Amino acid sequence: MRANHEAFTRRTLRSRVLVDVSHIDPTTTVLSTPVNAPFFVCPTAYHGSIHPDAEMGTARAASAAGVLAAFSTLSTASLEQIAAAAPAGPRWFQLYLQPEFSASQRLVERAEKSGYSAIVLTVDLPVLANRDRQAHGGFALAAWPPLGNGADIVGPPRGFETRGRTFTLRPDAESGWKILDQLRGVTDLPLVVKGVLTADDALAAIEHGARAVIVSNHGGRQLDGAPASLDALPEVVAAVGTRAEVYLDGGVRRGSDVVMALGLGARAVGLGRPILWGLGAGGERGVARVLSLLMVDLLTTMALTGRRSISELDSTVLGPVRGT
Amino acid sequence: MRANHEAFTRRTLRSRVLVDVSHIDPTTTVLSTPVNAPFFVCPTAYHGSIHPDAEMGTARAASAAGVLAAFSTLSTASLEQIAAAAPAGPRWFQLYLQPEFSASQRLVERAEKSGYSAIVLTVDLPVLANRDRQAHGGFALAAWPPLGNGADIVGPPRGFETRGRTFTLRPDAESGWKILDQLRGVTDLPLVVKGVLTADDALAAIEHGARAVIVSNHGGRQLDGAPASLDALPEVVAAVGTRAEVYLDGGVRRGSDVVMALGLGARAVGLGRPILWGLGAGGERGVARVLSLLMVDLLTTMALTGRRSISELDSTVLGPVRGT
Amino acid sequence: MRANHEAFTRRTLRSRVLVDVSHIDPTTTVLSTPVNAPFFVCPTAYHGSIHPDAEMGTARAASAAGVLAAFSTLSTASLEQIAAAAPAGPRWFQLYLQPEFSASQRLVERAEKSGYSAIVLTVDLPVLANRDRQAHGGFALAAWPPLGNGADIVGPPRGFETRGRTFTLRPDAESGWKILDQLRGVTDLPLVVKGVLTADDALAAIEHGARAVIVSNHGGRQLDGAPASLDALPEVVAAVGTRAEVYLDGGVRRGSDVVMALGLGARAVGLGRPILWGLGAGGERGVARVLSLLMVDLLTTMALTGRRSISELDSTVLGPVRGT
Amino acid sequence: MRANHEAFTRRTLRSRVLVDVSHIDPTTTVLSTPVNAPFFVCPTAYHGSIHPDAEMGTARAASAAGVLAAFSTLSTASLEQIAAAAPAGPRWFQLYLQPEFSASQRLVERAEKSGYSAIVLTVDLPVLANRDRQAHGGFALAAWPPLGNGADIVGPPRGFETRGRTFTLRPDAESGWKILDQLRGVTDLPLVVKGVLTADDALAAIEHGARAVIVSNHGGRQLDGAPASLDALPEVVAAVGTRAEVYLDGGVRRGSDVVMALGLGARAVGLGRPILWGLGAGGERGVARVLSLLMVDLLTTMALTGRRSISELDSTVLGPVRGT
Repeated sequence: MRANHEAFTRRTLRSRVLVDVSHIDPTTTVLSTPVNAPFFVCPTAYHGSIHPDAEMGTARAASAAGVLAAFSTLSTASLEQIAAAAPAGPRWFQLYLQPEFSASQRLVERAEKSGYSAIVLTVDLPVLANRDRQAHGGFALAAWPPLGNGADIVGPPRGFETRGRTFTLRPDAESGWKILDQLRGVTDLPLVVKGVLTADDALAAIEHGARAVIVSNHGGRQLDGAPASLDALPEVVAAVGTRAEVYLDGGVRRGSDVVMALGLGARAVGLGRPILWGLGAGGERGVARVLSLLMVDLLTTMALTGRRSISELDSTVLGPVRGT
Repeated sequence: MRANHEAFTRRTLRSRVLVDVSHIDPTTTVLSTPVNAPFFVCPTAYHGSIHPDAEMGTARAASAAGVLAAFSTLSTASLEQIAAAAPAGPRWFQLYLQPEFSASQRLVERAEKSGYSAIVLTVDLPVLANRDRQAHGGFALAAWPPLGNGADIVGPPRGFETRGRTFTLRPDAESGWKILDQLRGVTDLPLVVKGVLTADDALAAIEHGARAVIVSNHGGRQLDGAPASLDALPEVVAAVGTRAEVYLDGGVRRGSDVVMALGLGARAVGLGRPILWGLGAGGERGVARVLSLLMVDLLTTMALTGRRSISELDSTVLGPVRGT
Repeated sequence: MRANHEAFTRRTLRSRVLVDVSHIDPTTTVLSTPVNAPFFVCPTAYHGSIHPDAEMGTARAASAAGVLAAFSTLSTASLEQIAAAAPAGPRWFQLYLQPEFSASQRLVERAEKSGYSAIVLTVDLPVLANRDRQAHGGFALAAWPPLGNGADIVGPPRGFETRGRTFTLRPDAESGWKILDQLRGVTDLPLVVKGVLTADDALAAIEHGARAVIVSNHGGRQLDGAPASLDALPEVVAAVGTRAEVYLDGGVRRGSDVVMALGLGARAVGLGRPILWGLGAGGERGVARVLSLLMVDLLTTMALTGRRSISELDSTVLGPVRGT
Repeated sequence: MRANHEAFTRRTLRSRVLVDVSHIDPTTTVLSTPVNAPFFVCPTAYHGSIHPDAEMGTARAASAAGVLAAFSTLSTASLEQIAAAAPAGPRWFQLYLQPEFSASQRLVERAEKSGYSAIVLTVDLPVLANRDRQAHGGFALAAWPPLGNGADIVGPPRGFETRGRTFTLRPDAESGWKILDQLRGVTDLPLVVKGVLTADDALAAIEHGARAVIVSNHGGRQLDGAPASLDALPEVVAAVGTRAEVYLDGGVRRGSDVVMALGLGARAVGLGRPILWGLGAGGERGVARVLSLLMVDLLTTMALTGRRSISELDSTVLGPVRGT
């Protein structure tokens, strides 16, 4: 997690002065969907465990701001309730593969029916990693939160079982890349693959029909020793080129972070923890406030770098890495 | 702000011993004006809000030390009062562009009439950035301080206004580089452009008639991710050559900082916070003390690097960057 | 010691997603002995001074986990007691050279007779170094612990004696590399040389018949200024090639550390302090818990890097060093 | 000061095992004088202000250890008292140039008469620099300590005097390198120039007859931005070659520091603060203890790097700089 922040700290931006920045347009598109900002709400679990507004609050705040929001398989509210709370969206559905493919299929079909416009397949949790920070911080849920999408829905495998001297995980970990082909067989929604950190995996995703990849180290909570998302971004962008869209999450807190990621080739960036901080502090209004603060900060950074539109945020906005 | 200090910490100086340093001459000129030291007082707003001596105290202390001082559009005292307090100067006038050019023009004409010898146009505030450090520190003004230069004078635009899905700033942000041509049309005073961090912007300033540029990241309070002023200096110096003077502000606290900046090609360096600390602590006498301490520290650094005059402070005074 | 940890922190791993990791096999061999994991228990002195289970507890926990354990000349229990506690092993015997070679020989013969399958010769303690951390921490033994292997057994020389203007150590420090030839003359057990940090010393060890070397800086407690074990590993691996096995100890705490060391060419890694923490906290059960936690963490890291067996943990698992 | 320590922390040593280190000889010579160790006592002022044993205690402890000691012009005891306290020496006399050369000459003649075997001319104090650390620490002398070498003896110039717009120091700052020629005209003792950090200054010293130079940044208390002594050493060593001896002071605390400096080409290293800590804590016995601890630490480092004599401490003892 720390690496994600430090990666942004090491980068620099090049200011540009006396440009006419009296009008600034932060709108863009993600997978052809128009959005008001190049940032979106990342899928995170159990919004209801931190505020009664739950995912409905998040959905309403994002929709009102014209910001894309992605919702987790492990939402407190059902995906239909979320859709009903903010019908206009835009919204995406994040899928954790279920042990039986038919269960995954049913979730995807429900999402398609409820107006979600893409499926985000999380691929970096074949197993839940050891989370020291949560343990040290005393993180615990009083009771396991209810699952809006059905009591039988499950998240990633929790651990290994011994089989003699080797170890096994739940069978769905066997899937491999062909799962993308399977998913495309049951939905026309575009697939977004979340949790890619290398060119190889990004290319495999595209080969199997993904329309976009999210460069992410799962907020630093999965692989110890994973690079910062921002440091992994250039390799992925270079490999993908124009064949798919590339997004980034991990450590985005300020307008300058958004601009740095876009300067390195991301089309948009995802917000995880900041949304939960906003939700916890003020429910829907808190989320709205976080989105608004980031928007102003983004506009300010665009003004100070002399960029009037998202398309002007190219690599010339970046200065040298600090200390090199 | 931290980056400004760390940039000086990473640099090293080369000592030179057994040079005859019995006489040391720290005088130089800035835009042909003789000054007693290669450092000057940067324009900062509202001196009256931290000490009743206000800008008159700063002006008297600087003038007595033979040090150039620049005063802000947003001064507590009027520019005429400041001039009257220390008629001998030398002094410069810092201009925030006003929404109406005629208002800017009147300020420039008043400055010219009151013996200010240059106009410093601040270009890195098309909008006020988010200032966490001020917010965290509980910075607040009991009441908005009176503006000596007229109640209708305004600073940089405070924020954006929504216009549908895009955003607008006050119209003067539209000006572009042609504002320098406009200003030259109404005054013969030399123009200094403050807030440049790249070769491109420095060259544009010269092309539009600027006689000097100040490499500055506004004390680290504007663009997140901006490079340290000192790190941006070499690029600007290399591009500008002898066509204009290059100054630097940001992080200058000691004689060694002055010498490093001059070694990298700055003609002089500006002091912001240290002057305010001195003013707050002791009014005119406090400013005089700050200038005196820095002078002794500069002389000491010159003695230890074996340099007897400002012209001897060239790039040979610099050693390798630490850790490389 | 700090350098050992920082070396792991600077390295990164490359994740690999949607690989079939439903079955993971962490088994390997060390010197042809099958083991359940590519980590082993390093020899450390006086287990009885921190828990009554002493080396018997460590031996039982390691054997139950199918993990190799090496035991010190300076054990609280005798090497025969240790062997009897966990007859199945696998176990190695660590040798501190004794002032008389015949005493060393007797220890080796006892180890061979008791089913130890290799002799680990520690070579980085010609003398005990100054240990500030122990002194600052108030480390002291109420009484010198009993020595299981015989009251006359001695560890490394404690210090120098003055001889005029020069200084002498105990005569066994004279041995030189020929000691390996001598040891091979009295045992058929393979020799492992522990405490090598350079290619030259690793090659000398092989030339004198060592079957494996342990890259180690003795937990950072011997040579001030020694490189981190992990930083010294590549040089040793490159020099040794396939002529011997190369292990590493120093700073291994997590599954990612194991994977990084194996990615850099180590065949296995040793655990020192973590075993003692486990033993101190819970005796045999504490050691078992430490081994189990590290196993799960290793499996998780293998799953997240998409590696199903130890042989797949090659250099492609490594990403760039951070900050370069 | 911090840079001096960090420079040692960044360096690494290469261990060498199974070398016959049963006999280690730390003796060497400095300017042909045999000494028991490649470290010496740096000249520091006013030993009497921290312990009643004063310089006599330092001299007795150093002489008993066979370690060279250099004593300051600003000693509490007279140079004759110091010589009488430890007649065998070896000892050097450190000279601060006096405003009148005849006063410098008298000091040199007294030193020669009292058996001092070299004159150490300090050249990095044309003026006393601003010493924040002393001010912040509340450093103050209850009364200015008595000067053993005569009440009229003076140290370096304390500051500048204004002369119009330029500034003057005491006339002796005019001396230039010809002062070495003058000193050689009045003494046959070898001259050591202390306070050199560049190749140019080292070469000038040799050209004017210096037999040795001390690479020093005056414990980090003079020039802000000066490089660490250790970082400046290679440039000086490369320039000087075999034409003079090169010593280093600044940050030496442990045996590994001594070995690193010698590996980079220093013939010996000086100890400043550690001697004063020892003197303050225990007078003569405290100094003896500091010298003894450093000797054991040096022997240990030599044993662990497999070096039996000072002549074996060449550049092969150094590993790569950390983090590169």
